[in-house]
Order: sequence, then structure tokens, then C-alpha cells
Amino acid sequence: MQKQRYPSFRTVLERGDILRAAGAHDALGAVLAQESGFQAVWSSSFEVSAARCLPDASLLTMTEYLEAAAAMQKALSVPVVADCDTGYGNSLNVAHMVHEYERAGITAVCLEDKIFPKMNSFAEAEQQLLPAPAFAHKIETAKNAQSDADFFVIARTEALIAGLPVQEALARCHAYVDAGADAVLIHSKAKTKDQVLEFLEQWDRRRPVVVVPTTYPDWHVDDAAQAGVSVVIYANQGLRATVSSLRHTFRSIYETGNSTALEGSIASVSDVFSLQRLADWQKLEA
Amino acid sequence: MQKQRYPSFRTVLERGDILRAAGAHDALGAVLAQESGFQAVWSSSFEVSAARCLPDASLLTMTEYLEAAAAMQKALSVPVVADCDTGYGNSLNVAHMVHEYERAGITAVCLEDKIFPKMNSFAEAEQQLLPAPAFAHKIETAKNAQSDADFFVIARTEALIAGLPVQEALARCHAYVDAGADAVLIHSKAKTKDQVLEFLEQWDRRRPVVVVPTTYPDWHVDDAAQAGVSVVIYANQGLRATVSSLRHTFRSIYETGNSTALEGSIASVSDVFSLQRLADWQKLEA
Amino acid sequence: MQKQRYPSFRTVLERGDILRAAGAHDALGAVLAQESGFQAVWSSSFEVSAARCLPDASLLTMTEYLEAAAAMQKALSVPVVADCDTGYGNSLNVAHMVHEYERAGITAVCLEDKIFPKMNSFAEAEQQLLPAPAFAHKIETAKNAQSDADFFVIARTEALIAGLPVQEALARCHAYVDAGADAVLIHSKAKTKDQVLEFLEQWDRRRPVVVVPTTYPDWHVDDAAQAGVSVVIYANQGLRATVSSLRHTFRSIYETGNSTALEGSIASVSDVFSLQRLADWQKLEA
Amino acid sequence: MQKQRYPSFRTVLERGDILRAAGAHDALGAVLAQESGFQAVWSSSFEVSAARCLPDASLLTMTEYLEAAAAMQKALSVPVVADCDTGYGNSLNVAHMVHEYERAGITAVCLEDKIFPKMNSFAEAEQQLLPAPAFAHKIETAKNAQSDADFFVIARTEALIAGLPVQEALARCHAYVDAGADAVLIHSKAKTKDQVLEFLEQWDRRRPVVVVPTTYPDWHVDDAAQAGVSVVIYANQGLRATVSSLRHTFRSIYETGNSTALEGSIASVSDVFSLQRLADWQKLEA
Repeated sequence: MQKQRYPSFRTVLERGDILRAAGAHDALGAVLAQESGFQAVWSSSFEVSAARCLPDASLLTMTEYLEAAAAMQKALSVPVVADCDTGYGNSLNVAHMVHEYERAGITAVCLEDKIFPKMNSFAEAEQQLLPAPAFAHKIETAKNAQSDADFFVIARTEALIAGLPVQEALARCHAYVDAGADAVLIHSKAKTKDQVLEFLEQWDRRRPVVVVPTTYPDWHVDDAAQAGVSVVIYANQGLRATVSSLRHTFRSIYETGNSTALEGSIASVSDVFSLQRLADWQKLEA
Repeated sequence: MQKQRYPSFRTVLERGDILRAAGAHDALGAVLAQESGFQAVWSSSFEVSAARCLPDASLLTMTEYLEAAAAMQKALSVPVVADCDTGYGNSLNVAHMVHEYERAGITAVCLEDKIFPKMNSFAEAEQQLLPAPAFAHKIETAKNAQSDADFFVIARTEALIAGLPVQEALARCHAYVDAGADAVLIHSKAKTKDQVLEFLEQWDRRRPVVVVPTTYPDWHVDDAAQAGVSVVIYANQGLRATVSSLRHTFRSIYETGNSTALEGSIASVSDVFSLQRLADWQKLEA
Repeated sequence: MQKQRYPSFRTVLERGDILRAAGAHDALGAVLAQESGFQAVWSSSFEVSAARCLPDASLLTMTEYLEAAAAMQKALSVPVVADCDTGYGNSLNVAHMVHEYERAGITAVCLEDKIFPKMNSFAEAEQQLLPAPAFAHKIETAKNAQSDADFFVIARTEALIAGLPVQEALARCHAYVDAGADAVLIHSKAKTKDQVLEFLEQWDRRRPVVVVPTTYPDWHVDDAAQAGVSVVIYANQGLRATVSSLRHTFRSIYETGNSTALEGSIASVSDVFSLQRLADWQKLEA
Repeated sequence: MQKQRYPSFRTVLERGDILRAAGAHDALGAVLAQESGFQAVWSSSFEVSAARCLPDASLLTMTEYLEAAAAMQKALSVPVVADCDTGYGNSLNVAHMVHEYERAGITAVCLEDKIFPKMNSFAEAEQQLLPAPAFAHKIETAKNAQSDADFFVIARTEALIAGLPVQEALARCHAYVDAGADAVLIHSKAKTKDQVLEFLEQWDRRRPVVVVPTTYPDWHVDDAAQAGVSVVIYANQGLRATVSSLRHTFRSIYETGNSTALEGSIASVSDVFSLQRLADWQKLEA
């Protein structure tokens, strides 16, 4: 049973093709994303908190988010991009976070320019942004804290989420790149990709752009690449499918009185053994 | 946002109807099982280890299994039954385990009579049993270690899994009840429920019997009740459905180039917010 | 080996005598404090962070502070008072914190009115206070979040630490009591106890007062009681003694080339076995 | 605030001088050992379990021992040698352990040839050894599981602890070296070093020898080096000094009614700030 090896996120990104990442909250989901072809896994705060039935509102701690990200990375041969929310506090917290994530083998993190504690971007709530210079200082601190030159810091602006115009998002992202960001993430919850396209048209392309098409799911990856996107994150579809699937499964067993009706459609116990790499492990026995 | 309250497993069992538990590995799955009507949640070692892509072979530690069980219990208003494998070592480990599980709010545990480290019962592997007196001592130790009279210890025999006859399973279960077990679990991986029925016919009914119909999924809960079963555990169907669902989801996104095809069948972000009880939490803000 | 039982902090406080608590960061220190007569143990953020060689600046997470507090409580028959800093964020974090600490068996917590992330009170740094109404809301949220009526919330004002006058400390503490605080903690880093005495003279005594005589070590417990103090916390002397002792020990071994010189003054291995309750545990073996 | 960098244990050992390691259970103790000159820190199971007031009997889990070792390594610029007891189960557990310790940045582990769950070597208890071939298989598995060629595995024989003769210890250690061990540890609880000297005289010196002079504290490091020892571990003196020191400190405060008597002998709050590297951290603020 060999330990997994994996390239850094930077290495994968530098291959040049548009990079697609899928959201997950545990190693199983992460491995299934990798198996389907995704080049990276997004360790999603929304998913990790939902897995605990707690809101995505900075309630779980860095310890818990890091454990989730690390558990995924251990099982993968593609890199994890860790959704680190606001960095869990101020610049000192960001430095500590970078130390801890790097030690755990994470090669890319994403920080967003909201105030700690944050509220999920899709929630009906006031979304408060940190002043741009304060967030730029966080990015600068993160870059200074990293020990491996490969470590990758994505600066995510929530300007559009907070109702500010595209110009504000651009101004912020420029400032974040000046502070050392390795890429920017432009997040929007509009029903269409128009705002994001407007951003891309005016982006100076000094650094790669990351997008998260949750509310505009029809954006084809090739069109996004054409528009200048380098990374697309499908952030939460796996979680949402899991909810539907578990609901159906549990209701079926409870209502029909047994699990016969499901047997044809659910994975076998042997399938799970393969995902656990059981055969490899059994070879280790004396 | 009120903290969840929940009755003990013993309390639920004493209501008299056959009790159905569904397997889960995180709070989200546990809450969906509860939502569907299940009266308890089985914190499954197979699921918890699969969620980390590691075999169900005593590789994860008690710390990790307990964290998973505790995370589920926190989100539930029905009790968790914790699958505690062999008790993680000898009788001292069992006593420590009971202290830790009770402190974490778990009201029922299940111990099995295999040797530590164990291998999953469905794996093609030699299944070694502990001598019955040694396992009876574990059960006695567990009962002496509990601090709340309500705490419930299920003794699971793997005699049939190890290829031994029903008489051995009966003899072991009688010894375990003599040692203080609150219930027994008779596990079988035969393709039919015949062995288990034979066990039930000869069981003296001093204590409730628990079954796990994974390989004989057609056993209707009413028939099981009729045969003398008190608890049915649907141990891993949720996990297996999750695997299928994630595979389908990730492949669809990767192959179609966007997530449009899924939107109609997966839960909405708002559905997830409800499971996170977001509205209740938001009321706490000043 | 019986599980430890312990009274709640409220129960101990209601016995009426002045209550003395000693700071600790692990179960060993906590048990030694209890052995010496202390009626409670202060799970000190300063100590817990120092044990990791990290500043007391909200770098460690709630998860880590809670683990430390819980590990202490498990080994004690006196209650832990958990130093919870600012509550780890806003009111939502405070509610979550109360849920988690209660579940872990902690019966008393202390919250302070600084801004998250905080800096240690003795550090040369600007100490920023939360506006009193916002902190009062945290206290109210904490009290609403508790599930056991016995749970005890101490409101700590850092007004004097922030350089504000005694009147501000009093006004804040009155507001915190109005919001539901079970006691107030008046912290000062003056070289004398004069400020604290001034506070006590004007305190309306609706709720007990807690003090932490780190910088005015000469305040005798009987004099504090006489002045109206209900709880004295000796917050960090154990840690500071440990530092001196380890320095001396390691230097001695390194410089003399063996450990002979220490043998007469350090505890024996058997002493440690007693603290581990080894004999009790060994009785559990078959 | 720069992240700590540290050489591997192998690198330090290859410098050629006798290497001295001091036992610790948290980062603070580890850093004080390093400060005093020790070239490595022994993450002691005895200390880590004592810090929780639990016996050193495989009650704590690998998760807990690893957390302790990792917390120490994070704060150090010398390497940790992790006391990994029996490897926490069978060969599969050993492989998993190596994966986890390596990922956490640990560069050296020590495995002993007792049966899981183990009992502390100094306890009055029967000490059961694993058959030599089974333990050799664990060593071989550990070496195959490592991903970095630098990773260092010490095979510790408890033959003398179990009352067996020096010849058995030698035979076992030879078998362990044949299986790939990078060094051997010969443990004895005799009142003198005679048994260990006898071992050293007959050792073929294919691999370095590690000793732990707890019960023969008068063995000078230079004499040990002369006798062929490569590594000396002072395994628990720090813990034992801490116990004495805390007892004295808490009793003094409790009995004298204040902490004045201690102020001259305990470290200052500023000393603790230095160990926390507070000044370095404060430079990070905007």
C-alpha cells in the first residue's frame, strides 16, 4: 500500500489547460471526483459545515476545516484547494493558518475579503467586506508565511456578493495581485454569468482567474476557458446530490420495509472495498 | 437555536415497537435518516472508514470513530448506536472507551467478539474470534465502567461470520448476556436469513436481538419483528447510495462540461441551508 | 476504575466560602491543583497556548481550547472554569461555544469583552474592547444557549486592561449582569490591587466577583474575601513554575552528563503511576 | 514569524557525535529541551499519557500520540523521535502509522516488540513479547511504508524488560536489523547498566544503539559513547520534575494564601511571552 503522491496545485495549473475542481467534504467524495477526471478538489467550507449540519458561518474552527482538507489530500493524487474563508481572523491568524495548512500537505488555499465571522455567500444576509488594504495585508502575510515557493494563495473577492459593482471587484483584485496573490477568484450569485464576463473582459490577466458557476450552471467549461477563466470550481453539486440520494434511500427503506428496491442502483459492498483499497492493504499482512 | 435533546437508546427501545436504525458516517446522513423516520442512527465503522478511503480494519482510532459518532449525536434528536468494533483492544481499552463514549453523550455501543485489530466482516479474510470468556469479560468491564444506568451495551457475535455453527453463536450470546449485555447482535453474511432465523428460534429471549440484513435485504421489517427481532440496522445502504450518486454527479459535470443536467435532480442550496438550520442560527444575531 | 464525578462550578460556589482556582493546561497540572486543595481549575488560554509555544492571541482554535478543558475535566473531581477568551467570534460563535462546552461536561465558562482576535492582557499591545451592548448581547446569547440551568457564565471586563477608568468597568459589569451574567471578573494589570479594590467598593454585589491577582501577588485570599471577592484565580503560576523547573532539569542533565543530580528532587516513576491511577486500571484486567 | 525548519533525525545522527534526546509531552517542554542543548526530543508515551492522568497502557490512541508529537515538532528546530509503542496493532496499523507520522513531519519513530495493548515497562505487570518474526515483519512493513528515504525506524526490544536474557535481546535485535531497522533500542529496568553493557559488548555494530538510562541515571554520556551507544534518551525526567514543581507551587499558594513566596523562583510572564515568540508574531500586524 503505497502512500499517495500528488503534484502541487501550482504544478497542475501550469500544465496550461483549464483546470476543473469539484467540491467535496471527505476523502470518499474527493476520490470520486478525482476518479471522474477532476484535476483538483475544492475542500468546501459550505460542504464541510453542512456535513455537520451547522451553517457555513465561521462556526466550525480552522482545526475542523483543516482536518477535512487534510483527510481529502491524504487519499488523493490530485491537489486539494482549501477554502479557508476569511483566514479565520486577522493577519496573525492567516500566518498561523498558512503554517498549519502547509504542514498538512495542502498546496493551495483560498482567502476571501469578508469580515470574520463570515456568512455563506448565498445566504440572505448582509455581506460585510474588509477594507481592501486590510485584506491585501492578509494576502501579503500569507505569502510571507509560506515556506515552500510552490504554495499557492487565491484571493477571492466578495465584492459582487456584497452588491458592489464590477469596478470594485476589479480594483480589489488588482490590489490583491499587487499584494502577492497567485490568482483571483471572482464570485457572483447572479442568475447569469454576465457580471463575471464583464470582470474577465477588463481583467489585466496578470494572474489566473477562478470562477464558481453555482448560480449560472449552464456555463460550459470551454466557453469559460475562451472567456479567460483558468480554473472552474463546481463547488457543491456533490453535496447536493448526496442529500437527494440519501433522502431517497432512507425513505425507500423506511417506507418499503426493506432495502430490496435499492439493491440494483446502489454501489455494492465490494465497490466500497475498492475505494478503501482493501486489496492493497491486505497484502501487507504477514 | 436550541441545543438538540434526545432520549437514550434504552428509552427508545423500551417503547416496544421494533426499532429501525440506519447507518451513517456524518451528521448530515444521520439527520436525513432521522428525517425519514428511523428511530436511531448506527455510527458505522465501515462507513466512517470508507469516508476516509481506508479499510474497515481497526486502522482509524477510537478518537476518530468517537468524533464521528459524537458529531452525529450532536445534530440528532434520536440516539446514536456506536459501532465500537472490538472495543479497541483489551478490557482496559473497553473501560476507557465507555468512559469516553458516555462523556460524549452516546447512550448505546456495540462490541463484537473478534480479535483486535479486526477485519470487516464482509471481506474475504480469516475472521478470528476472541475466546468467549475473554469477550464476556469485556462486556462485564463495559457494564462496570458505565456511569449512567441507562447506558446500553450490545454484544455482537461474529460466530457465523467466522464460519461457526448457530449453536456456537447461541452459546456465546448466552454467555454475553450472563456477563451483562443489554442486547445481542447476531451477524451473518449468508445470502439468506435462514441462519439468523434458526438463532432466533432457539434464543431464550432474555435480551433483545439485533440484526443487520445487508446480504438478505428482502427481509421485511414486519417479518423480522414477527421472528423475534427487536432492532434492525440498515448499516451501509446510505453510504452505497452516496457512492453511486457522487459517481454519477461528478461524471455528468465532467463529461457534459457544466452542471445544467443535474440541476433538476439535486437538492437546492436552500435545502442545504435548511439542514444546516440556518434560519434558526441567524435569529441569534444582534 | 470509576469514572470521575464532579459537582458543577455553581454548586461549589454556592457552598459560600471564597473559592480558589488554579490555572492549568493539562490534566496532570489540573489534578495536582486539586490535590493541593483548589476547589476549581482555570483552563487558562495563556497556559494552553504557551504549551504549544504560540501566543495567547486567538491563534489556537475553540477546538483546541475545548480539548484542553475537557481533558482536564475528565481527570478531576472539582469543576473546570474554561477561559473562553472572546467567545471565538460573534454571538453565533458564542452560542456554538456554549453548546460544545456543555456537551463536553464543562460547567462554567468565562467570556471577555475584547474584540476577536484578542491579544493577551499582559502583552504590550493596544487592547480593543467591544462596545458594551455588543458584549452584553454575547452574554445574553450564552445564557440562552445553555441547556442545563446550572451552567455558569462569567463576564470578564478588560476595561482596566484597556486603560479605561474603574467607572467604565463598573458600568460594563452592571450591563453584563443585566444581560444575565452569573458573575463578573474584574481584570487589572496594575502593580497593586487598588483599582480592583475601588471596583469592589462600588460594586452592587448583585453577582459574585472574580479576581486574578497575577500582578499583585501579595493579596492574601482572606483579605480578598473580606473585600468582597468570591473567586480568586491563580491563573499562570503553575505554568511559570514548570518553565523554571524544566529549564533547570534539562540544563542539569545536559551539563552534568547524566541525571543523577536530579534524582533526589524529582518525583519518582511510581509517583507518576499514582497520578495515572495505574493500580486502579490494572484491577480491570481479567 | 518564520515557520520552523528542522533537519531529519537521520541527518542529526550522521553528524557522528553521541546524540542526546530529552523526553517531553508538549511543545513547551520540547522547546526547553532544545534550548538546553538536546539534539532531539523524545515524544514519550509515558509522558503524553501521564499528562492526561491515564496509564501508559495503549489507552490513548495513535491520533492522540501523533497530535502530541506533531505539536512538538512544529515548535522545534531539532527533530522529534516519536515513541510509537507497539505500532498500535498489527502490520497494517504500522503501515498506517508510518503514513500518518511522515505526513505530520516526524522523521523518526520507535517501535517496541511487545504485544498490543502494551503496559509501561516499569509497571509491575507481565510483559508479553511478540514473537520475533512477527515484530520483524512490522519493522519491514514500516520501512516499506515510508515515502522519504530519510525516515528512520528504531526497533526497540523489551526482552530484558520481560525477564529474558541478553542473548535473546541480541538475537531479536539482529533479526530486526535484518528486517530493515535503522537502529535498535535496548531497554532495561535493572538498577545498573550491566545488562546493557553486556549487550553492547556483543553487538555487531551494524546499526546504532539507543539507550534509556532511567534506572541507572549515573551513566555519564561520555561513558555511554565509549561503550558504543549512539543515542541516549532521558525519557521522563522533565515530567517528573514538573510533577514536583507543580506540587510545590500549588501547595505554596494554597497554604500561604497568596503567590508572593513563589515570585522570585518562577519564570516571569515575559519569559513565557518569549517562549511563545510573541514579539515575532506581533510584527505581523498591519
